[in-house]
Amino acid sequence: MSFGTSEFCISVQHVIDARQRIEKYVRRTPVLETCGVAADGTSLLLKCENLQQGAAFKARGATNAVMSLSESDALAGVVTHSSGNHAAALARAAVARGIQAHIVMPSNSARVKLQAVRSLGVEPILCEPTSAAREATAADVQRRTGATLVHPFNDPAVIAGQGTAVLEILEQVPDVQAIIVPVGGGGLLAGSLIAAKSLRPDLRVFGAEPQWADDAWRSMQSGKIEPAMRTDSIADGLRTPLGTLTFPIIRSLVDDILTVCEDSIRRATKQLAHQIRIIAEPSGAVTVAAVQDHADRFRGLKTVALISGGNLDDFSLLS
Amino acid sequence: MSFGTSEFCISVQHVIDARQRIEKYVRRTPVLETCGVAADGTSLLLKCENLQQGAAFKARGATNAVMSLSESDALAGVVTHSSGNHAAALARAAVARGIQAHIVMPSNSARVKLQAVRSLGVEPILCEPTSAAREATAADVQRRTGATLVHPFNDPAVIAGQGTAVLEILEQVPDVQAIIVPVGGGGLLAGSLIAAKSLRPDLRVFGAEPQWADDAWRSMQSGKIEPAMRTDSIADGLRTPLGTLTFPIIRSLVDDILTVCEDSIRRATKQLAHQIRIIAEPSGAVTVAAVQDHADRFRGLKTVALISGGNLDDFSLLS
Repeated sequence: MSFGTSEFCISVQHVIDARQRIEKYVRRTPVLETCGVAADGTSLLLKCENLQQGAAFKARGATNAVMSLSESDALAGVVTHSSGNHAAALARAAVARGIQAHIVMPSNSARVKLQAVRSLGVEPILCEPTSAAREATAADVQRRTGATLVHPFNDPAVIAGQGTAVLEILEQVPDVQAIIVPVGGGGLLAGSLIAAKSLRPDLRVFGAEPQWADDAWRSMQSGKIEPAMRTDSIADGLRTPLGTLTFPIIRSLVDDILTVCEDSIRRATKQLAHQIRIIAEPSGAVTVAAVQDHADRFRGLKTVALISGGNLDDFSLLS
Repeated sequence: MSFGTSEFCISVQHVIDARQRIEKYVRRTPVLETCGVAADGTSLLLKCENLQQGAAFKARGATNAVMSLSESDALAGVVTHSSGNHAAALARAAVARGIQAHIVMPSNSARVKLQAVRSLGVEPILCEPTSAAREATAADVQRRTGATLVHPFNDPAVIAGQGTAVLEILEQVPDVQAIIVPVGGGGLLAGSLIAAKSLRPDLRVFGAEPQWADDAWRSMQSGKIEPAMRTDSIADGLRTPLGTLTFPIIRSLVDDILTVCEDSIRRATKQLAHQIRIIAEPSGAVTVAAVQDHADRFRGLKTVALISGGNLDDFSLLS
């Protein structure tokens, strides 16, 4: 595919460089075969980022951002505001580089998420659970310390890092015909698109999101970044609107955004545990739900669904 | 290590041949890193046979046995009696070769185990839930059909097939220093020992079993095959006594048999789900429990614990 890299914040070379930069710190996650999960006629494999360091693909982008910093910037540390997997991923990457991480988290964050950051030796900075308070607190830390803000998805180094999962898929499943990844803020999807459409222009790349968080689908329709309309999807990692850096890439390159209902996400999460024997969080299982609910889009295609994370809070979902 | 192959039912060449015979039909399962599962000073990796075809290493031995049959023997089919993972594994291998499988199962078998066989298009032959009834029913099928009996572990082709997991480990973790596998009837442990001690005589190989099913440990002490004393361990795949073909190999070559209590098995099963994001059945998690409870045996060693299966019946164990 001929697309000028100038219109996007990264090119495939940034993804290739990212891979080399992070490979000592993140895992090459396995691809698992499935049987009886997708409809007949679809060969479905799973790229298991739930088996990644910290149980989420977020390790890739956060590590690339931290390892890309100049020596002098690194000395001042990094800061982010996140209630999710990016927080722990950034803390881990900072520890690996031996620099300070300031992690701003809402005071009502799940205990397991707070614990994940604390177990890395980083004490989260708690703030009121509003976007305004998170951003203000992070900005204050930045002013005070000179730390570099590493946004969870609207950052070129983060986008390039997330794309490295697709480089691995292309080696692990050379004859892959379709890839589907979850879309929240769009960092993973944008990075995947840059890698896939540059190296394998014929490869179809889909984004998957909950119907209850269908902002990416609506953004594709309207041509501008649409806000999230509700915040109650069980796929809590995907409630975020797209970013100004991720949307242009997605709008130009994605084959389609596929939405799924809450029941399908629950069913897929349970099925991954019972049939594939892996724990996915609902945001991670949304791709499998999409392959099932949009079976016609994948018929005859060797398809890789990316399972983005495994930080499941509520194990009763599996029973 | 210099051991005459004549004293054992197989040599390492049988394991190497088995691998070539089965590689089209079974998966090369991933090895996962762990962090915080074993005590400090032990680098623990997991060989995930719970992610194998049919969610158990049993696919290896059963497939090797079926694919080793002569054309004329194959025509008459295969028969086994098993309430567990071997039943489905043999049925699957028979279907792959296009021959008939007669699977004798106790009438009180778990629904999921019966379902696993039925989903392969093989209707189990139900019998009374006693050893005598199982053996008599299988013998009757053998007489009637001429089918070849494929024992779950006391069979050279099965032992050789199970050993192929260790060939993969040696490639995946070339600097491995210790391997630990569960021991029930001893097919997996015997095959692992033949492969490991022939190719890497310095490699330590341990068997792990429940204290409540410590027949292998007692057999090592007494020098003869000891019966199982109770049948209530949660690790239901490991309640079986050793076989006449597996015990001589284990007695000569194993470094030690390590036993663990029921609480440790439950804890390890839960931990694998929460920290590693994989589903193991309790019989599969027993190796992780052993690495934890016998930490001094693994200190300073790069250790691979084999997770033998993922057919967990009771998901409430994970909550």
